[in-house]
Amino acid sequence: MKSDDPSRGIDRRALVSSLILLPALSAALLSSPVQAQTTSSASLASWNDGPAKQAILDFVRATTDQGSPKFVPADDRVATFDQDGTLWVEHPIYTQIVYCLDRVSTLATQKPELKRIEPFKTVLSGDGEALAKLSMHDLETILVAALTGMPVEEFEAEVKKWLETATHPRWKRLYTDLTFQPMLEVQQYLRDNGFKTYIVTGGGQDFVRVYSQRVYGIPPEQVVGTMGGTKFGYDKNGKPFLTKEPKLLLNNDKAGKPEGIHLMIGRRPHAAFGNSDGDREMLEYTGAGDGARLMMLVLHDDDAREYAYGPARGLPDSKFGRFTAALDDEAKKNGWTVISMKNDWKRVFSFE
Amino acid sequence: MKSDDPSRGIDRRALVSSLILLPALSAALLSSPVQAQTTSSASLASWNDGPAKQAILDFVRATTDQGSPKFVPADDRVATFDQDGTLWVEHPIYTQIVYCLDRVSTLATQKPELKRIEPFKTVLSGDGEALAKLSMHDLETILVAALTGMPVEEFEAEVKKWLETATHPRWKRLYTDLTFQPMLEVQQYLRDNGFKTYIVTGGGQDFVRVYSQRVYGIPPEQVVGTMGGTKFGYDKNGKPFLTKEPKLLLNNDKAGKPEGIHLMIGRRPHAAFGNSDGDREMLEYTGAGDGARLMMLVLHDDDAREYAYGPARGLPDSKFGRFTAALDDEAKKNGWTVISMKNDWKRVFSFE
Repeated sequence: MKSDDPSRGIDRRALVSSLILLPALSAALLSSPVQAQTTSSASLASWNDGPAKQAILDFVRATTDQGSPKFVPADDRVATFDQDGTLWVEHPIYTQIVYCLDRVSTLATQKPELKRIEPFKTVLSGDGEALAKLSMHDLETILVAALTGMPVEEFEAEVKKWLETATHPRWKRLYTDLTFQPMLEVQQYLRDNGFKTYIVTGGGQDFVRVYSQRVYGIPPEQVVGTMGGTKFGYDKNGKPFLTKEPKLLLNNDKAGKPEGIHLMIGRRPHAAFGNSDGDREMLEYTGAGDGARLMMLVLHDDDAREYAYGPARGLPDSKFGRFTAALDDEAKKNGWTVISMKNDWKRVFSFE
Repeated sequence: MKSDDPSRGIDRRALVSSLILLPALSAALLSSPVQAQTTSSASLASWNDGPAKQAILDFVRATTDQGSPKFVPADDRVATFDQDGTLWVEHPIYTQIVYCLDRVSTLATQKPELKRIEPFKTVLSGDGEALAKLSMHDLETILVAALTGMPVEEFEAEVKKWLETATHPRWKRLYTDLTFQPMLEVQQYLRDNGFKTYIVTGGGQDFVRVYSQRVYGIPPEQVVGTMGGTKFGYDKNGKPFLTKEPKLLLNNDKAGKPEGIHLMIGRRPHAAFGNSDGDREMLEYTGAGDGARLMMLVLHDDDAREYAYGPARGLPDSKFGRFTAALDDEAKKNGWTVISMKNDWKRVFSFE
């Protein structure tokens, strides 16, 4: 565990932006299905031909071809994407938790008394085994300390700075380099076909917003995440500002995902992408609408290029991003498409 | 008071859509300031020349002219609008409250016991004097009964149906006809210049979303309002649905407005429009940003064409939408522009 502790491998190299954004394609919507398909061949370049790629192409054709009985007007086209495990690597631990653990060091410099208080003492010890044993309540205490109590701009600046240097222990690359190239292509392909793309994550809304535009081409207002309250106030010069409060408004996971979608978007998506039982209700809610709907789940079955975990299909169980046998059964029953990372993706990362 | 009771004048005529949407202008953004100004002359047709109109033109020129030191990239352009009293008539009573009062009749048909319970008994009596004396707590009870406890689609359908027939007691017109033509023009003008327009209202987010696209050209995801929770569940056939819960997530008024803006948009607006002390914090927050900012307040000083209320500038005091002397002072101090309905608007409504 110790060698896998993500707070270790930090190197201070400058921001590498190799896969930040796909080439800016024309924003002009393609109205003809023939044109749309032409675009697809180019823009889904990292997908192998197969049922997953075909499901995407069929869905876009059905919803954007004016002659289709399932045509959806451009203004109504909404697609939602889970983030951790769906758009980027979530192992061995969610990136945002790595941030929070790293952040404890900075906090301890400002408040030395934390060095003697649990769970901060354990985090600062760097003892991987003890860290792994922290309870959910301990993690919550760390999250509250790392994510609240400061002005929103200060929080944004801290996260931005951290993302420029923190690296993943396995690839020794920035976390924002570890997005899945095929998923970036699907997002761009949907946008090229008039869909508004949203991130719908169990992660903190304000955390993901810091890099969503740069990494996914998704603006902050299209990030739906776990939401904390803020408090409006004035500084000593009378200038107004917002402070991040330790108040949970909505836990955007499981049943919280459709609730968050209703709150932030106000309409049902036509397409939803996830990878774990935290995404089940989002896919169910999406699938309960009329007309053409696309529900997809990423299965991590590629230990060589990324990771292999389930526990469905005999894959090892996982602490984060569990793809359970029950989820697999529901996907089969409801006609959701399971994306096999191993078989459906020509390439996992852009740097490969 | 009784003759002014808005739940009276209902007539069942079909939906008149005279001012629903401005002519669909090209969505292409105008990159040159010269072009932008050409558009403005046409699109601010209901504004008299004067400081208010000039402030709008100056702001758009400063933020959209690439040569301007205050240029704002198109992706960052955000403008927020209060609704009641800023975009449409708020007197003698907020439209959403009229809806809730009307809704009590329907509820009493379903649950006859309400006829014997306060505050429903008073509402059903139609006694205007007693109605006016209802406490804030009574109103909250009515709001919870009228706005929660049903699936979100059922709520939407109810509001939609009501809006097709309910009329304002003074003009005998649909409430959605009583939007201010000059404000619709400003919204369209800003959109034509690359701004994303949002409604930021103390009213219910789900209520305003029912008609925001049709009436203002603003999609549901760009409505920020007072937010209630929903609860995900399954019907007897296993179909998932969301129920509106009597749980307040955010009261989007006063300090709640910048908090709601951060939650829903995640960035500071460049322009904000209001009309009362409920909008003060939104304008302060907008004005605290760098570069060009536009803060405007509608002053209702036109009893002949609409209403006259303050209590600033010697106008009569008001129960809803109070433009106080302190707000007037703050506007002067901070360089916010006060829009005089009487002097700045050639036309108030599209039907004039």
